[in-house]
Amino acid sequence: MTDNNVVYVGNKPVMNYVLAVVKEFNNGANEVVIKARGKAISRAVDTAEVSRNRFLMDKKINGITIGTEKMVSEDRASNVSIIEIVLGK
Amino acid sequence: MTDNNVVYVGNKPVMNYVLAVVKEFNNGANEVVIKARGKAISRAVDTAEVSRNRFLMDKKINGITIGTEKMVSEDRASNVSIIEIVLGK
Repeated sequence: MTDNNVVYVGNKPVMNYVLAVVKEFNNGANEVVIKARGKAISRAVDTAEVSRNRFLMDKKINGITIGTEKMVSEDRASNVSIIEIVLGK
Repeated sequence: MTDNNVVYVGNKPVMNYVLAVVKEFNNGANEVVIKARGKAISRAVDTAEVSRNRFLMDKKINGITIGTEKMVSEDRASNVSIIEIVLGK
């Protein structure tokens, strides 16, 4: 078991991330953190919900945090929203 | 002041919903609930973050809930994720 059980949600199908979450728990994780930013935030919520409703019925949501990150691209800075959802016992 | 200070986030620009949140507080609300489902969830998080960082610096996030709702269309049922973000003092 590692301390950093983080699943980063991007643009792939939700089920990819659900399987990554399930795998983390199967590998002995006590908690898994689902992280996403920008438009992937909706998919992170889907990932948490599908994981909990279909595969990990004994797990709970231990916390949800939202925040803002500065993204710096070549010539300008912009803000992007982020979410962290903690699943655990 | 009403008891139901809810802003439903849909497909319009984020700033529309930010202004709706600010207006609720200006009308005397103690708490405002930002709700969205499906792909609008990302925009709900943006709404909360922009409201807090730019207009309502004295307000805090009092709670974030995620869940699943059954959508029944003509011939089939599907699940959609929902989010509720509570802003308050």
